[in-house]
Amino acid sequence: MDHSKTKVFGKTKIRWLINKTSDDWLRLAVSNPMEILLDHAHCERKAAGVALQLMFRYSSEPGLSEVLSPLAREELEHFERVLYILRGRGQSLQKLASPPYASVLAKSIRKEEPKKMLDSFLVAGLIEARSHERMTLLSLHSPDHELRTLYTDLLKSEAKHFGIYWKLADERFDRNILISRLEELAKVESDALVELHHEPRMHS
Amino acid sequence: MDHSKTKVFGKTKIRWLINKTSDDWLRLAVSNPMEILLDHAHCERKAAGVALQLMFRYSSEPGLSEVLSPLAREELEHFERVLYILRGRGQSLQKLASPPYASVLAKSIRKEEPKKMLDSFLVAGLIEARSHERMTLLSLHSPDHELRTLYTDLLKSEAKHFGIYWKLADERFDRNILISRLEELAKVESDALVELHHEPRMHS
Repeated sequence: MDHSKTKVFGKTKIRWLINKTSDDWLRLAVSNPMEILLDHAHCERKAAGVALQLMFRYSSEPGLSEVLSPLAREELEHFERVLYILRGRGQSLQKLASPPYASVLAKSIRKEEPKKMLDSFLVAGLIEARSHERMTLLSLHSPDHELRTLYTDLLKSEAKHFGIYWKLADERFDRNILISRLEELAKVESDALVELHHEPRMHS
Repeated sequence: MDHSKTKVFGKTKIRWLINKTSDDWLRLAVSNPMEILLDHAHCERKAAGVALQLMFRYSSEPGLSEVLSPLAREELEHFERVLYILRGRGQSLQKLASPPYASVLAKSIRKEEPKKMLDSFLVAGLIEARSHERMTLLSLHSPDHELRTLYTDLLKSEAKHFGIYWKLADERFDRNILISRLEELAKVESDALVELHHEPRMHS
């Protein structure tokens, strides 16, 4: 398994994740499957929200809505599937306190355009890459068969999401600027996870 | 054709639209098909945005995400279909100035809960009902065959959207309060359209 989510685009190797997820997180996650599942539902909903927010902010950007609208639909499909499993286990959707992860990353998005657009793509891609890495771990190590199947199924389509955000950035920004900014943001992303959050979350 | 969008729920007749759309609007719309189509793309995107916004605001409300997530996906599918037709005609998605309609309705949503929830459902339902009425007109009167087909196809699923918002409200609020508030908001909705907006829009 490739924890670093290294992808090759042409001759360029793209490395999203600097640190791989700790065994401590995995232990916490697999011993709290329902809380992780509930948080995962919220993550899918939020991922759809991010795609839609970008579609609103850059509503006249050529080629953007064409890829983000299907991505948002896919996240919502996953959300509904997780909701269905939750309901089958007598659990309804309820609010969960968020770990600091997403807000730390959001603060790293620069305010002025076009840097804001670049950072937004990269931060969304980083979150997708981390989700993908952790869903892979859950698909392998969840003691529960239904959950292993769920995560395995979702992985298949989640795998292309960080590639979509990379492509959106790569089509619009100089490759060197892009890679150097990704390195900076990937550092922020990995640092945000160094200390294990006390509550079990997808991004704790 | 039932312009008033009267629906019967049990013994209760629900009337969404007080005034039917004027011939002036229809004339303006059919003579500006591309601008209406572009605006329609934005309307589908915004309708998905409204559903998702409600899913965020009421994320632990039982039975809400279960119906609004598929609705949002359907709006996004329609958005993509309109985008495809626009592209086929050499037109890309670009910003359009919005008519005052949606913001007038948004201002009528009361600030405090649970009134805010009730008003949000009814306003969303009213906008869906008006869209449905106007898409019906366009499906009948557009001179362009491809557009008549488009609007006819979209109508089939759009028809149930205002019913979804009605049901969300009806499951949570007293029927008498609901009907009396719908009458007030339906008046705001119809009044917002009395004067024809100078630019051709779905809700002008």
